[in-house]
Amino acid sequence: MSVSVFEHPFLRSLLGDDAVAAAFTAKADLAAMLRFETALAAAEAEAGLIPAAAAVAIAVAAERLVIAPAELAAAVARDGVVIPEMVRRLRAAVDEPHRAFVHKGSTSQDVIDTSLFIRLKAVAEILAARIDALMTGFDRLVAAHGGVMLTGHTRMQRARPITLAHKVAAWREPLARQQARLPALTEGLFRVQLGGAVGNRSELGEGAQQVADAVAARLGLHTAPRATHSDRDGIVVLGHWFTVVSGILGKFGADVALMAQNEIGAVNIAGGGGSSAMPEKNNPVGAEILVTLARFTAALQSGLDQALVHENERSGAAWTLEWMILPQLAVAAGASTRTALALLDALRFPQQDAAI
Amino acid sequence: MSVSVFEHPFLRSLLGDDAVAAAFTAKADLAAMLRFETALAAAEAEAGLIPAAAAVAIAVAAERLVIAPAELAAAVARDGVVIPEMVRRLRAAVDEPHRAFVHKGSTSQDVIDTSLFIRLKAVAEILAARIDALMTGFDRLVAAHGGVMLTGHTRMQRARPITLAHKVAAWREPLARQQARLPALTEGLFRVQLGGAVGNRSELGEGAQQVADAVAARLGLHTAPRATHSDRDGIVVLGHWFTVVSGILGKFGADVALMAQNEIGAVNIAGGGGSSAMPEKNNPVGAEILVTLARFTAALQSGLDQALVHENERSGAAWTLEWMILPQLAVAAGASTRTALALLDALRFPQQDAAI
Amino acid sequence: MSVSVFEHPFLRSLLGDDAVAAAFTAKADLAAMLRFETALAAAEAEAGLIPAAAAVAIAVAAERLVIAPAELAAAVARDGVVIPEMVRRLRAAVDEPHRAFVHKGSTSQDVIDTSLFIRLKAVAEILAARIDALMTGFDRLVAAHGGVMLTGHTRMQRARPITLAHKVAAWREPLARQQARLPALTEGLFRVQLGGAVGNRSELGEGAQQVADAVAARLGLHTAPRATHSDRDGIVVLGHWFTVVSGILGKFGADVALMAQNEIGAVNIAGGGGSSAMPEKNNPVGAEILVTLARFTAALQSGLDQALVHENERSGAAWTLEWMILPQLAVAAGASTRTALALLDALRFPQQDAAI
Amino acid sequence: MSVSVFEHPFLRSLLGDDAVAAAFTAKADLAAMLRFETALAAAEAEAGLIPAAAAVAIAVAAERLVIAPAELAAAVARDGVVIPEMVRRLRAAVDEPHRAFVHKGSTSQDVIDTSLFIRLKAVAEILAARIDALMTGFDRLVAAHGGVMLTGHTRMQRARPITLAHKVAAWREPLARQQARLPALTEGLFRVQLGGAVGNRSELGEGAQQVADAVAARLGLHTAPRATHSDRDGIVVLGHWFTVVSGILGKFGADVALMAQNEIGAVNIAGGGGSSAMPEKNNPVGAEILVTLARFTAALQSGLDQALVHENERSGAAWTLEWMILPQLAVAAGASTRTALALLDALRFPQQDAAI
Repeated sequence: MSVSVFEHPFLRSLLGDDAVAAAFTAKADLAAMLRFETALAAAEAEAGLIPAAAAVAIAVAAERLVIAPAELAAAVARDGVVIPEMVRRLRAAVDEPHRAFVHKGSTSQDVIDTSLFIRLKAVAEILAARIDALMTGFDRLVAAHGGVMLTGHTRMQRARPITLAHKVAAWREPLARQQARLPALTEGLFRVQLGGAVGNRSELGEGAQQVADAVAARLGLHTAPRATHSDRDGIVVLGHWFTVVSGILGKFGADVALMAQNEIGAVNIAGGGGSSAMPEKNNPVGAEILVTLARFTAALQSGLDQALVHENERSGAAWTLEWMILPQLAVAAGASTRTALALLDALRFPQQDAAI
Repeated sequence: MSVSVFEHPFLRSLLGDDAVAAAFTAKADLAAMLRFETALAAAEAEAGLIPAAAAVAIAVAAERLVIAPAELAAAVARDGVVIPEMVRRLRAAVDEPHRAFVHKGSTSQDVIDTSLFIRLKAVAEILAARIDALMTGFDRLVAAHGGVMLTGHTRMQRARPITLAHKVAAWREPLARQQARLPALTEGLFRVQLGGAVGNRSELGEGAQQVADAVAARLGLHTAPRATHSDRDGIVVLGHWFTVVSGILGKFGADVALMAQNEIGAVNIAGGGGSSAMPEKNNPVGAEILVTLARFTAALQSGLDQALVHENERSGAAWTLEWMILPQLAVAAGASTRTALALLDALRFPQQDAAI
Repeated sequence: MSVSVFEHPFLRSLLGDDAVAAAFTAKADLAAMLRFETALAAAEAEAGLIPAAAAVAIAVAAERLVIAPAELAAAVARDGVVIPEMVRRLRAAVDEPHRAFVHKGSTSQDVIDTSLFIRLKAVAEILAARIDALMTGFDRLVAAHGGVMLTGHTRMQRARPITLAHKVAAWREPLARQQARLPALTEGLFRVQLGGAVGNRSELGEGAQQVADAVAARLGLHTAPRATHSDRDGIVVLGHWFTVVSGILGKFGADVALMAQNEIGAVNIAGGGGSSAMPEKNNPVGAEILVTLARFTAALQSGLDQALVHENERSGAAWTLEWMILPQLAVAAGASTRTALALLDALRFPQQDAAI
Repeated sequence: MSVSVFEHPFLRSLLGDDAVAAAFTAKADLAAMLRFETALAAAEAEAGLIPAAAAVAIAVAAERLVIAPAELAAAVARDGVVIPEMVRRLRAAVDEPHRAFVHKGSTSQDVIDTSLFIRLKAVAEILAARIDALMTGFDRLVAAHGGVMLTGHTRMQRARPITLAHKVAAWREPLARQQARLPALTEGLFRVQLGGAVGNRSELGEGAQQVADAVAARLGLHTAPRATHSDRDGIVVLGHWFTVVSGILGKFGADVALMAQNEIGAVNIAGGGGSSAMPEKNNPVGAEILVTLARFTAALQSGLDQALVHENERSGAAWTLEWMILPQLAVAAGASTRTALALLDALRFPQQDAAI
């Protein structure tokens, strides 16, 4: 199906980002969730909470377990989460007497959130690399053409002359600021979620923190002194980072579309889009799409922010709302960086009309 | 991929609606776009603007043309719209001397918008039928249990006794109001889009309205005296209708989740969801999902409303923003109606604990 | 204070609308709420529910009652609504034995909602008159300069020539469509709210509908068979009408700002704004503000849509959210119409440079 | 007027925050803007760019200048910003030959943004102190009643027992995380804005950075190597911090409202709100308002995020949008902290029913 442009067979190339989207396949999710179950069992065995043989049996079963995502649909429609059915299948694949040790002391949200953090870590790396490339590209542009004189415009009217270097700084600097914020954001967020039924780790007793630390070490995540089942500011702030990255690149797109107007002609775009009625046109498609993506993420952000009102120890309503929005924000930010890189490559300045 | 819950192999059963989503496949879109090209050629032939033989050749070619949607991806990434490439392929499938008559007097937006209206018409019919079923279900509930006494609550505190019939009226009446609005909304919106390159029908000359009327008749759409390439209030108001339907059902869900709290026990839900940690629980999954969908549509609505700021004769940025949002609003409204119907069936009132 | 631009001593002239804002003063609210109490008592007397002398005493007291709005602040902070304290004061102003008949069978929401509908009726009339004036202005513009040739632009690039008349149609027609929707919207919404403590009119017995009809007649409102304390789609749809009006005019503003770019010069704006650094500039301030107001209403709309999730028989949280948003949407729509009228008057077309 | 609840004579006590709102009066703005002009002249004199006597004359005139904010309304309606008229008045108050040195090398946005940063600094201090008080309050609550046993609820159903300490951690920890983020946010943002007409400091020549540093020192702000007229991520991220603070407290409010339901009775609220129809009720007004404020800020955030698409060297449209939203977010966050503090004080746990 193609309800979302991010999955659409021909709009995805315009508005999506396959590299970031790969983190959000059901298959990637299931794989990460099974990694969590394996790491949990191993950590619990180390802490003496379950037999070592059980941890081995669980690891083997998780490794071999094949689940076609669509088979889980009926159970998810009933339970609201995939874990009860996934755990049932994993248990069925573990021989007795180890079966009861699967998922011990954990709950749906532990597994789903940890899987998300594993995959968001990969997303953050992709985006950080793209932003690096953009900053390099802007630096190259300044090195090559920074002295080109442009007309500065304020309030949509001609103002004073500026250099291209001045213009580019307003595109590049906010990216540098967001890049600088990322390590603190991710360290605070990409932590193993481990809380059990009501988030208080009661099923794990005194060894709970040791288990959490060991799971974190195995999964390459940070560790935390408590679960954050119901306090979701970390997720929301990361979502806003995606939104801000998209918004910053929306400003770049808006500027390029304005500069590329025929009547202004401050920049040309190599390989702009064609029209069915006017084949001679050279539409600034990438520039427009950057604006679209910025407006899209800005709108969705408000839905993610609404999810902060998370009732009780776990909210079915607010938590599920995150699932509907966060992946879209991540992929939109990815699409923004991908599109901006291509647009940057295609900019041609009339004086030289040479590749940057 | 599964960025969007609406396409996700196992979350779709919880949060999606396959019947409504069917209107948004690339395949359905391509089919409707080719129907437009065929109807346009036929109408132009009737108006004497192109040879009758050309219209026949175009119809035959459109009927036989097979396009794998993914093949169009590269062109869409370049052009920002699918039409230049689709028209190129249709032209290639039409023998000379008819080729030049394909897509005559039309433009990308004519084809894409008209295809959307054809498909939205089907969506509106599905939703109207679901709302009818909900109203019938609420009527049946009142007939069976309307006299059940409940505690009314205001501001989250016990107030005075009310009947179930009184409670149900607050769920049913707004649906009736929205149902009543739908014919006027759709008549104003589901019109053939026909404007040509800059929306003024200049390529069709004096026969333009005759052509538009004939295309409308062939496609089962309404007709309009002008194109609405850049004035998008009709789309936005329909999108808000989806949002309001979802919001109304969000109130139903919120009420049921509150009533079903163990400590209140005003209603039981047959077949509620299970938990991986506490198998004995009976979670009000459907009720929560109705709240989620309501909050989701409310957030996305603001993005659609932003698309009203549509610059010039056609905006790449604002128009594309509609594509990212409107299908999601439609499918979310579909999911809300689907979920509400299932929830309504599952409600059990303690006094009788019998199916409605 | 000046937290909101709509109250700000010098930003209000730019972004506000005093005519619409007048409907949202605390004084206007109190006056309308007291009118409701008077009309309710009169209607209850007619229905034989309270003594005629009580209705007279209440009318006299309400007429004479002077309440400085700020005196109510402490009570509102405690109760969350103004009515308990207002009713206490009204009761204190009524002589015995009539005191107990004040506010009989009613509740806070009846009074507050009815006062809102009385005042929104005035707002709708102001906006309808402004939209009429805009349509007339656009007609006059077309009559005077409709034949002026402009360059049509699609996707921010030059496309084909269009007439000014064609351009204006995209500004005017959506206003005509929204104007046409208004009567149905307001008839469905501007109804006396009368439900009592939990909305079921139980305190008024069999005479409830007669009382509601009589109150409606006295207040110039429509009547309804039931209260809508918790089903709020009518409010939300009216709010969206404000948003759509602002959005439509945002498109007008965006177009004018683009047309007025020095490099394009398709229109001049008489009396545009000056700059502190470049006094020679002629900034398209009104055009920009129309865009600002459109984006503002689009964002706020999502908050109003969230208020559809109204829990139980009355929600303190969702209902209060309406109070924070709806007045701002109304005044922003007012400011949009006011600004659009002034901008329309200031447009000058280079060929003639004459007043329209 | 009372369009906004934040200025409303009786709703302000419920939904506003006078301490934070004080930063957003027109008077406070004018005072801070004049401080900027004075500091700028002093710094320019130090750098040898203007005569020392001119700086003194400007300081004296700025000190003595009395401007009734409403007098500026007509000019703002024309210019879109207050600075041309404010500078005109300041110039008129400065004797020749110094007049020309007023506002030298600066532009409207330099003055308005710097004034905003001065005042936001005060807002951040208020909010930081409130968050400290909340954290202390939560700590005290845990110290006094942390061992109280509650029923944990997940997905709106009874789950397992938890301690009050566990519940409180989910309220307190996210505040601690947001508190920890604040210094980095404000250091990056509260910088002197100094760019001149098109943001490149061209009017100040080589002494520009020295001037900026000296202005920063005088105003207690940070310094920056360039102006950020058109890259607005800093503002938007601070706005989101307000939104997240409100959202975190919205979760606290939602939990308290659920716990205080009569049927659950996990907490009582001393001095809850009364009802006009049911005086015996004890409504959880503060708890509900926290939810309202969270939903309000979440919705407005999307408007602020839209302002990232800031066209060219200065956007009238996007920049003005900030003015409509940012103060409301700040005051809403203030109201959330104020309300949360009062609610925390009013919580009573049934076992002891003693003040915390």
